[in-house]
Amino acid sequence: MTVTLIAIACGVIAVLYGLLTSRQVLAQPAGNQRMVDIAGAIQEGARAYLARQYTTIAIVGVVVAVLVGLFLGLTPAIGFIVGAILSGVAGFIGMNISVKANVRTAEAARTSLQGGLTTAFRSGAITGMLVAGLALLAISGFFYVMVAVRGHAPNDRAVVDALVALAFGASLISIFARLGGGIFTKAADVGADLVGKVEAGIPEDDPRNPAVIADNVGDNVGDCAGMAADLFETYVVTVGATMVLTALLIGNAAGDILALMSLPLIVGGVCIITSIIGTYMVRLGRGQSIMGALYKGFWTTALLSIPALFIATRLTLGDLNQQIGGAEAAGTDLDAGSAVAAQTGGFTGWDLFWCMMIGLGVTALLVWITEYYTGTKYRPVKSIAKASETGHGTNVIQGLAISLESTALPTIVICVAIIASYLLAGLIGIAFAATAMLALAGMVVALDAYGPVTDNAGGIAEMSGMEDEVRHRTDALDAVGNTTKAVTKGYAIGSAALAALVLFGAYTTDLREFSTELGIGGGNAVDFSLSNPYVVVGLLLGALLPYLFGAMGMTAVGRAAGNVVIDVRDQFANDKGIMAGTSRPNYARTVDLVTRAAIKEMIVPSLLPVLTPIVVYFVIAAVAGREQGFAALGALLLGVIVSGLFVAISMTSGGGAWDNAKKYIEDGNHGGKGSEAHKAAVTGDTVGDPYKDTAGPAVNPMIKITNIVALLLLAALAGHGAG
Amino acid sequence: MTVTLIAIACGVIAVLYGLLTSRQVLAQPAGNQRMVDIAGAIQEGARAYLARQYTTIAIVGVVVAVLVGLFLGLTPAIGFIVGAILSGVAGFIGMNISVKANVRTAEAARTSLQGGLTTAFRSGAITGMLVAGLALLAISGFFYVMVAVRGHAPNDRAVVDALVALAFGASLISIFARLGGGIFTKAADVGADLVGKVEAGIPEDDPRNPAVIADNVGDNVGDCAGMAADLFETYVVTVGATMVLTALLIGNAAGDILALMSLPLIVGGVCIITSIIGTYMVRLGRGQSIMGALYKGFWTTALLSIPALFIATRLTLGDLNQQIGGAEAAGTDLDAGSAVAAQTGGFTGWDLFWCMMIGLGVTALLVWITEYYTGTKYRPVKSIAKASETGHGTNVIQGLAISLESTALPTIVICVAIIASYLLAGLIGIAFAATAMLALAGMVVALDAYGPVTDNAGGIAEMSGMEDEVRHRTDALDAVGNTTKAVTKGYAIGSAALAALVLFGAYTTDLREFSTELGIGGGNAVDFSLSNPYVVVGLLLGALLPYLFGAMGMTAVGRAAGNVVIDVRDQFANDKGIMAGTSRPNYARTVDLVTRAAIKEMIVPSLLPVLTPIVVYFVIAAVAGREQGFAALGALLLGVIVSGLFVAISMTSGGGAWDNAKKYIEDGNHGGKGSEAHKAAVTGDTVGDPYKDTAGPAVNPMIKITNIVALLLLAALAGHGAG
Repeated sequence: MTVTLIAIACGVIAVLYGLLTSRQVLAQPAGNQRMVDIAGAIQEGARAYLARQYTTIAIVGVVVAVLVGLFLGLTPAIGFIVGAILSGVAGFIGMNISVKANVRTAEAARTSLQGGLTTAFRSGAITGMLVAGLALLAISGFFYVMVAVRGHAPNDRAVVDALVALAFGASLISIFARLGGGIFTKAADVGADLVGKVEAGIPEDDPRNPAVIADNVGDNVGDCAGMAADLFETYVVTVGATMVLTALLIGNAAGDILALMSLPLIVGGVCIITSIIGTYMVRLGRGQSIMGALYKGFWTTALLSIPALFIATRLTLGDLNQQIGGAEAAGTDLDAGSAVAAQTGGFTGWDLFWCMMIGLGVTALLVWITEYYTGTKYRPVKSIAKASETGHGTNVIQGLAISLESTALPTIVICVAIIASYLLAGLIGIAFAATAMLALAGMVVALDAYGPVTDNAGGIAEMSGMEDEVRHRTDALDAVGNTTKAVTKGYAIGSAALAALVLFGAYTTDLREFSTELGIGGGNAVDFSLSNPYVVVGLLLGALLPYLFGAMGMTAVGRAAGNVVIDVRDQFANDKGIMAGTSRPNYARTVDLVTRAAIKEMIVPSLLPVLTPIVVYFVIAAVAGREQGFAALGALLLGVIVSGLFVAISMTSGGGAWDNAKKYIEDGNHGGKGSEAHKAAVTGDTVGDPYKDTAGPAVNPMIKITNIVALLLLAALAGHGAG
Repeated sequence: MTVTLIAIACGVIAVLYGLLTSRQVLAQPAGNQRMVDIAGAIQEGARAYLARQYTTIAIVGVVVAVLVGLFLGLTPAIGFIVGAILSGVAGFIGMNISVKANVRTAEAARTSLQGGLTTAFRSGAITGMLVAGLALLAISGFFYVMVAVRGHAPNDRAVVDALVALAFGASLISIFARLGGGIFTKAADVGADLVGKVEAGIPEDDPRNPAVIADNVGDNVGDCAGMAADLFETYVVTVGATMVLTALLIGNAAGDILALMSLPLIVGGVCIITSIIGTYMVRLGRGQSIMGALYKGFWTTALLSIPALFIATRLTLGDLNQQIGGAEAAGTDLDAGSAVAAQTGGFTGWDLFWCMMIGLGVTALLVWITEYYTGTKYRPVKSIAKASETGHGTNVIQGLAISLESTALPTIVICVAIIASYLLAGLIGIAFAATAMLALAGMVVALDAYGPVTDNAGGIAEMSGMEDEVRHRTDALDAVGNTTKAVTKGYAIGSAALAALVLFGAYTTDLREFSTELGIGGGNAVDFSLSNPYVVVGLLLGALLPYLFGAMGMTAVGRAAGNVVIDVRDQFANDKGIMAGTSRPNYARTVDLVTRAAIKEMIVPSLLPVLTPIVVYFVIAAVAGREQGFAALGALLLGVIVSGLFVAISMTSGGGAWDNAKKYIEDGNHGGKGSEAHKAAVTGDTVGDPYKDTAGPAVNPMIKITNIVALLLLAALAGHGAG
């Protein structure tokens, strides 16, 4: 268990990094009283929202925990609770830093651009390291307790079930947090814009707008807390699924199995170290390019990870040329007759290392592609900006065209990665590619969590009436945030595609192993062939989920934003002093209203992916028998990813492109601010908001929760509880 | 062959109906000289476009015909040419009637609403009956020649290949016509709106706008000729695929096979008769509801088709309780080990009849669902109209939400239909359900082709300065066209989902039958299981196609519309008399420009679905062997439909909803014409245009062409040419 202990140590280092850096950030000056007041209002609102969100989630969580306990036993229930709580903690701490760093970033930007950048990025890095560190601690700690303390074999069913339950806990929190936060942030944003910019004709972030604090709160609860929960979940599910799949596929050759199951943990561990090193490389160069500074950190981490992963693999597996899980794996019953079997037999440590390199390569390519589609320097954003000249309609048409197009390159990259890693080491190769992708999560989240801090800093600078020069600096910092936010989403959904394949592999393997308990004849009784109509039906229903979920998310934002408009109109009408600037608007009332709306709206769509797999299984099983029920359910899992990948990428890249097309025009192109083209671009930006920040990113946890529910359903039906 | 001869006779009746009704329509007065002049300009433009489009397609067509001849032999090449030419003929004649009926509809609307309705609907019915009649004639005539004249067994490979090639010809024309026409119509429409309504501030259909004739031409070449080619293709492919699948699955029990293969033909035949009867029921009731009048025709046809289909089935199969294709089919080699086999063994005539009832049911439900999502009376359109009050952004957000949501009910209906018909009669049951859906094509096309006629009639009324009262009537006729157009598209894509399953069944059956010729080991060497990563890659690449295709279509419209804007600006600048109304704009120049742009833009996206299956097969086969190449290719076929269904439905329903939300506001709601809400609704309408008329509907032929190319690739690789 040495390897696991090293991984735990790395997790602890990440948390320590978070604590120490927090001190540094908090030790910085928070500016004048006005700034402190504004930041205080944002903090208060954000905490109030999270408190209510977590209370609501807790109710659902307790119910689910009891169900998990009843059907699967105590240990999985504990796993579920640990996953859920740590996911919440990662989001909560991250957000807490974020709402304190915003005002400090604004204050630091007073002195220099580098000052603002450092404060904002450090704050992001805290969230990033906490997400990766806590996620790694959760899995490796749990694994350690199960294996070293409680003495289970590493691939014992109890360990597998507990890991799946841990992932479920993380996912369940994540979908609520992503969606609730997403609805909050965009309802406040769209509502504030509609009633402020459009109706009252006051600028963005004007303190007279009662929705302005809600808007800033939204950045934190959505883009910081929601995102952190999402990436925590992605990390736990991916690393956990890799371990589960290894346990299921690599027979009982105990020598191999412990090493192989610990490998994902140490991979995560060493990449935390390279991520921490990377954070110190974020410095402006001579060109003062902010994106360049952030990329310096990212590329440092990515490049250092290559030797780090080599050392980790060598350390864990020993001789990299030795065959792993060869004859034994291919010979066991569970693999008979499956395509998986043909390939898991026989791969080496080198093969796994190359798979991880593929994972790093995919990450790098997805970052590059997302930057291309959402950066102001390239054709896509420029084409949207140009289309804005001919009006709102053409702006939206071109934006939709770009959003559709932006799915092509990521899909091809993912397909190539699937094939290459499969050829190297079968399904386990795909799993390790996904794990290597996620190992960089600390750095990627750091880049992303930087965004809401600078966004808030800009708002605070505006509201507290700071000098134009400062506002100019915070704007520059903020503009880069759009791209880094899009990058994280592309990365998360790309890894989800690979992780979902791994989860599907776990599902089919489980089905074979428990065919007797599940009452289905023989090991291969379930026909997953595309010529089975129940498979097609499953694919179609699965493909429907992201659409329906997206529709619900978009509608929720529209509805909640409408409420904001009504509330603000009401405040303006009842207190003429607000517009005159003599009386202070009731910010808290608007925050409270958006909070209630977001919590209410998140429930139904979040339950959609939890309940659909269960309903589909039981309906199809009732009509056509258990075998077809499992076939349709399995196909549903792939249908969700096949359609979800496209829905999510198109929404997040398209939304980012719209946003930056507006920024590009504001930089003085196509007539600049106030021109007709700018008005059209504002429309595109508004449309892109719920696309990129509500519906699109929530597809990622949705995909995984569907898969995990299916795995748990299998476990419950097979009755192998009481672990 | 009596049954086939009856089907041929029905086809002839449809063509005769078309000729006779044409005479009636053409005998009506064409109005005053001004109207005749305008209509003349439209006719000229439409013919010029189609001439150039067909010339371009002919070049591609000749190349493909030679390739088909080289790889598959002379008879398939002839099949390809017949399919291609008749598809073009259906579109060409339909459009020719449409451009003559438009002015006559305007003239008839002078007297009464019923007069306008009758003329417009009759014109639509001509197109409808020609599409269904020619399609039926093509298949049944070809089948008759192959079997009765040339003496092939009905399920001989030569017959199968020829039918597939026939479908390929129809599909290839269809994708070019749908996309080229779609780009033309929306480039002209969007361009005319941008430069006329937005820039110059003149109303729609103002004769001073040089793009106004191009806009009217577009209605005919897109919504009439393009749509007719599309439905011709859908008909030929669906009925053809049903016959092909029957030939492949139902062994060699020759007694059964001829009857069963003729059944789809007679099904098409009797429904032509019920459709013709239905056309005579289109009359305004007391409530003067135009939609009600059209529905009277539709429901008459649908209800009469129930007994008609019963009689046809009884006549063809004899005793409906007798088992068909039972033991023989299940016992043959080609079905061994497949899910299909389990079900094709043992179904009765009654089972097939019930499958056809399911097909009729699906049609009725899809019509109803589409009407719900696009009609002005229901929540979806009203919600978009309401969202327009808060601006362009919220209009588009709500429209996108509705477009995503609108996929849910159709998907569920299709899934239920797949399961129910599969339980009744296996894959053949699904095929017959699809055939029954398509049998109503004559009536459905009639409803659709009515749209461009009334749209043009409105334009002519406006341009020739007819009285307000007349304009009011043509507007009322036109408004209904939006819904009927959306209905046809939902119907076409819904049937495509079923047809694609049938084509996939043909593909897998072919693979098994030719495993030796294809150099793949054994009958089940190709693993279509979802746990095969090449299947997942195929699904992802297939799912990408509609997105990429949609992106290309949308971009093409944007680009071509931009050219229109530049041209019109240039005309305005060089001749001040145009805006003053003293000189006539150069309509032909704009038409010519749009023509060239549309033709240029249609080529690449149209070749995408033709070339992708070939490229994917060869790349994967090179990397992982032939078996995996075929697995990935098969999965690609399902991936296209799984994602295409959603892309197409969301685009066509969403677009229709946006359009009618504008109309709803123009009817005096939310502030009416000229209000801010109206401006926002115009933006939504513009966005919806390329969605619903370019990218969305072209997905339907795209899905089928991908499938057919795969079938032909198999045939070519197996080298069973020289038929």
